[in-house]
Amino acid sequence: MSTTMADTSSPKKKGGLEGIVAATTALSKVEGTVGRLIYRGYNIHDLARTTSFEEVAYLLWFGHLPNQQELATLKEKLAAQRTLPAVVVQMLSNLPSTVEPMDALRTATSAWGAMAITGKPTVEQAIAVTARFPLFLATFHRVRSGLGLLEPRADLGHAANYLYLLTGQEPEEQHVQALNAYLVLLADHGMNASTFTARVVASTESDIVSAVVAAIGALKGPLHGGAPSKVLDMLQAIGTLENAEPWLRNAMAHGQRLMGFGHRVYKTEDPRAEELREMARVADPQEFVLARRVEELALALLEEEKPGRRLYTNVEFYSAVLLASVGLPGDLFTPAFAMGRVAGWTAHILEQLGNNRLIRPEAEYIGPMEQTFVPLSER
Amino acid sequence: MSTTMADTSSPKKKGGLEGIVAATTALSKVEGTVGRLIYRGYNIHDLARTTSFEEVAYLLWFGHLPNQQELATLKEKLAAQRTLPAVVVQMLSNLPSTVEPMDALRTATSAWGAMAITGKPTVEQAIAVTARFPLFLATFHRVRSGLGLLEPRADLGHAANYLYLLTGQEPEEQHVQALNAYLVLLADHGMNASTFTARVVASTESDIVSAVVAAIGALKGPLHGGAPSKVLDMLQAIGTLENAEPWLRNAMAHGQRLMGFGHRVYKTEDPRAEELREMARVADPQEFVLARRVEELALALLEEEKPGRRLYTNVEFYSAVLLASVGLPGDLFTPAFAMGRVAGWTAHILEQLGNNRLIRPEAEYIGPMEQTFVPLSER
Repeated sequence: MSTTMADTSSPKKKGGLEGIVAATTALSKVEGTVGRLIYRGYNIHDLARTTSFEEVAYLLWFGHLPNQQELATLKEKLAAQRTLPAVVVQMLSNLPSTVEPMDALRTATSAWGAMAITGKPTVEQAIAVTARFPLFLATFHRVRSGLGLLEPRADLGHAANYLYLLTGQEPEEQHVQALNAYLVLLADHGMNASTFTARVVASTESDIVSAVVAAIGALKGPLHGGAPSKVLDMLQAIGTLENAEPWLRNAMAHGQRLMGFGHRVYKTEDPRAEELREMARVADPQEFVLARRVEELALALLEEEKPGRRLYTNVEFYSAVLLASVGLPGDLFTPAFAMGRVAGWTAHILEQLGNNRLIRPEAEYIGPMEQTFVPLSER
Repeated sequence: MSTTMADTSSPKKKGGLEGIVAATTALSKVEGTVGRLIYRGYNIHDLARTTSFEEVAYLLWFGHLPNQQELATLKEKLAAQRTLPAVVVQMLSNLPSTVEPMDALRTATSAWGAMAITGKPTVEQAIAVTARFPLFLATFHRVRSGLGLLEPRADLGHAANYLYLLTGQEPEEQHVQALNAYLVLLADHGMNASTFTARVVASTESDIVSAVVAAIGALKGPLHGGAPSKVLDMLQAIGTLENAEPWLRNAMAHGQRLMGFGHRVYKTEDPRAEELREMARVADPQEFVLARRVEELALALLEEEKPGRRLYTNVEFYSAVLLASVGLPGDLFTPAFAMGRVAGWTAHILEQLGNNRLIRPEAEYIGPMEQTFVPLSER
C-alpha cells in the first residue's frame, strides 16, 4: 500500500474562520475593542432598558423601530401564534424528564415546523416560530415537573407570558422587566456561531425551521451559549460573602477556570454585561450582593494572577444571576438565550435570502493522496 | 433621526466563502478540475463497485479499510443499533402523512438524540445514529402509507435492510448493489454545505446529534441535496424516447432549466455521475435507456445552445434514476442522500473535535451607524 502525504506547505489560513467576512449584515455590529454593540444603528444602551423584546424583534425584522400601531399589530400576531399542535404537546409529554431542555426545544421546533411551515422563509414565519419558543419550553418544563399545562395569556407580553406559563403565577413586574431586558440584550450579536449556522443552512434555500433548529444545536455548545448555568453553580458553591475570597483563591490555586470572565471578541467590558448587571440588581437586590462581590473579587484576583491580562466580566456571568433571580432553573438559561436570539436568527435568515449565495467554503485536504485498493478478501 | 452609513470600502471579500479554507481534513478530497474524488486516499472509482457502505463508513471513521474481522464487528454493531424508542415511533406515527420525509428525519433524529445521546461525540455514537437513519425513514414511510412496521433484519446489510424495511420484500440483488453503491458514492464530499454546517455546530462543543440534525436541515435545501426528485419529474414528463428531443428543445426554448447538469465544483464530469450511471443501468436496464438518451440529448443541446460552456451531468441526474430504479419514491431521494452522507458528517464531527477551534467568522456591517433613539410614546 503506497501512501503519499499531501503537500502541507499551502498558504496560511486562520483557524475557526477568525477575521474572515462571511456575509454582510445590516442587523447588528459588534465593536469588540471599544465595547460597543448596535442593532441597526441603535446603541444597545439606548435599547436595553427602554424597549420591549417585541420592539427589538420588530426592529430586526422590519428595519426600523415600530410606532405604536405597528407594535400593537406585532404583539397581536405574536399572541395569535401562541398555540401548539396536539402532536407537539404529546411528543414533549412523552420525553423523559431527564432530557435536556435545549434538546426538547430543538425537537419541538423541528416537529412543529414539519407540520406548520412550507415554502420560503417569510417574516410571518419568523413571528410564528419566535412566538412558540416560550410555549415549547414551558410545556416541557411543566410536564417534566409533573404540573398541568396552562393557557397562554394574550394580555401579557412575550417575557411576562413565558414566566406565567412556567409558574402559573402573575409574574412580578421587576422579573418581567429583567427578563425582557435580557431578551433584548441577547437578541442579536453579529456573526456568532449559531447565527452563522442559521445563515449557512438558509443559504441552501432550506426552510426557516431547518435553519433555526440548526442554530439551536449550535447555541447548545458550551463554547457558545451552553455554559451560563455553570456561573450559577459557582455562586451556589461559594454561598456566602465571607466565603467568596477563600473559595476563589482556592479555585485559582487549583487551576480551576472561573466562570463568566473573558470573551473572544470583547477586549473591554461587554456592553451587555453592564446592562445585565443593572437588571440583575433590579430582579433581586438581595441575591445581587453576592454576585457583585464575587465579580469584583474575581476580576481583582485575575488581575493579581496575571497583571495586564485584563479579563472582563462576560455576558454569561450576569445572565446567570439575572435568570436565576427571575426564577428560572439553571437548565432553562441557555433556552432563554435561544428565546432572545431567535429574533436575530430569523432576521439573519431573511437577510441572507435577500441576496443569497450558497455558503460553501473549502477544506484543505491533509490525508494520504494515493492508496492502492486491496479487496476485502485480501485484507 | 441621524443616519450615517457604514464605510463600505473595506477589503474585498468573496461571497459564499468560496475559496476560503474553513478546516483541514483527512477524509476526502474533491478535485473539481480533473474530476477526481478520493476518500482517505482511495479513488472513488476503486471503491464504488467493490466495497459495501459499511466498509466505507469504517474507512471514514477509523482511517483505514477494515479487515474481515473489523468489518464483521462493525456490521454487528450497526445491526445491534437497529432499535427505536417507543416515543420516536409514536411521534413518527403521529406526524401527518403530508410531512416531508426530510422533516420527519430531522425530527426523529432530534427526538432520538434527546433521549439516547449524552457526552462528547464518539465513534460509537456515530455508529448509533448512522444505523438509525433507515429506521427513522422506513418507519415514517410505512406509517404514512398505512402499512404496519417491520422488524429490522440483522442478516441484511445496511442498504438491503433499508429496502426490506420499506417494502417487506426480500430486496433484489441488483437493487441492493445499486443502493449500496449510491451510499458509498455519496458518503463524503469535502466541505459541502451540510458537512460544513455539522462542523460549525460541532465546533461549539455541542453534541453529535445537534450537529447531524443541523446537517439534515442544510441538505434539505434545493441548492444542496434537495432537488434530485426534479430530475425524475423531468424524465416522467418526457415519458418516451421519441418525446425526448422535442420536449427538451421546447423546455430550453421556454428558458426552463434542465435538471441534473452542471456543478459548482466540477469543471469536468463528476466521477460519481459516471459510477451512478453504471449502477443505474444495473438497477434497471430498461428504465436506463430513456435516462441515457435524455442525458445525451440534453448535453448535446446545451452545447448547441452555448458552445464551449461544457456543462456536465451532475450527481443528481443518475441519483434520481438509480433511486427510482431501486423502488424509492421521489421524496425519499434526498433522505437517501442523508443516509449515505451521515457517515461523512459524523466522521467530520469527530475530526473537527480532534483539533477543535470555534468556527466563528465575521460579518461586515453595512447598516446605519448612529440612530438617535426615540421612545415609543413619541414614535
